[in-house]
Amino acid sequence: MVERTDEQHNAKMKKKQAAHEKIMENKTVEKGLLIVHTGKGKGKTTAALGMVVRAIGHGKKVGVVQFVKGAMTTGEKAVFDAFPDNVEFKPMGEGFTWNTQDRSRDIAVAREAWDEVRRMIADPAYDMVLADELNIVLRYDYLPLDEVLEAVTARAPMKHVVITGRNAPDALIEAADLVTEMTQVKHPFRQGVKAQAGIEF
Amino acid sequence: MVERTDEQHNAKMKKKQAAHEKIMENKTVEKGLLIVHTGKGKGKTTAALGMVVRAIGHGKKVGVVQFVKGAMTTGEKAVFDAFPDNVEFKPMGEGFTWNTQDRSRDIAVAREAWDEVRRMIADPAYDMVLADELNIVLRYDYLPLDEVLEAVTARAPMKHVVITGRNAPDALIEAADLVTEMTQVKHPFRQGVKAQAGIEF
Repeated sequence: MVERTDEQHNAKMKKKQAAHEKIMENKTVEKGLLIVHTGKGKGKTTAALGMVVRAIGHGKKVGVVQFVKGAMTTGEKAVFDAFPDNVEFKPMGEGFTWNTQDRSRDIAVAREAWDEVRRMIADPAYDMVLADELNIVLRYDYLPLDEVLEAVTARAPMKHVVITGRNAPDALIEAADLVTEMTQVKHPFRQGVKAQAGIEF
Repeated sequence: MVERTDEQHNAKMKKKQAAHEKIMENKTVEKGLLIVHTGKGKGKTTAALGMVVRAIGHGKKVGVVQFVKGAMTTGEKAVFDAFPDNVEFKPMGEGFTWNTQDRSRDIAVAREAWDEVRRMIADPAYDMVLADELNIVLRYDYLPLDEVLEAVTARAPMKHVVITGRNAPDALIEAADLVTEMTQVKHPFRQGVKAQAGIEF
């Protein structure tokens, strides 16, 4: 963009490098993170899935609980199946709530899924726990937020917990270490494109 | 959050479902998408990695070219290695540019990586091509934007191309089908936490 001589460019890069190294010097802490992916854009579940893959690649054990069916499906399932010792996948969600129209059943399903998450958070065998689309369940008040906050706050120091879904509650954002908001800039639905294998599922 | 009877809730959900079905009725097109993940937040590469995993899970063939070393590393590599027929991974980047301070070398590396991307886009064997951190290279003007736009626009109708990196050029966003901006809400660096296995790499 900006025209610079090679010398100017190299000097600028050297300065950037020094600044970067200074910042990194103080980053010495290792800790289990509470990570939240929220916002209306795509990529919340997909980025969580990417983290699961990284963790698997490092030989870690990951528990994945899906609160809403369809958010995680056949594509990732096939890959998880290749690492049976590293991933425990619980597809608990019974479909979006507007497909069931039965609140008491939805609450029971949410409770069952949450019990799995809580078990995985409490069990030292799991290095990372992904509660996919948990925010949706909290949004509909299907689970008490306090119970969720209590469990994630009481997690072991090195345990990572990843929670996804739009409309993350403020208290959860407050409790989290890393929060990313995915914002939709452009979506192919506007062109009449349907959900496709490898992209949405 | 809002107090409703089960009946009111179910009626509301039924209405939501009908609206959802009406929207989905018109989503009949299947096409290869140009997907851009940009913004300053985390999750751009991670969400792209999640898409690669989904595509692999569907038996598709994916080409992955890494323009900046370190963005994709050991974690995903180990998982890719489990699917040698489905993923071709080219870790081309030679480290962030401030580590080399040699612009002409950086440009040569960018060119080499881009040639791989272009080959994969042109080759019908690949269903999806990920050009990870290509936007960084474009930002530094290491590759002509026109060349990139030409190649992605001329892709086969069913080919997905995913491009990541902050500061996506306007013309690329214009050309894309799906654009998500990852916005940083909260980052653990502020607490002195360093990059950790399973999260950043």
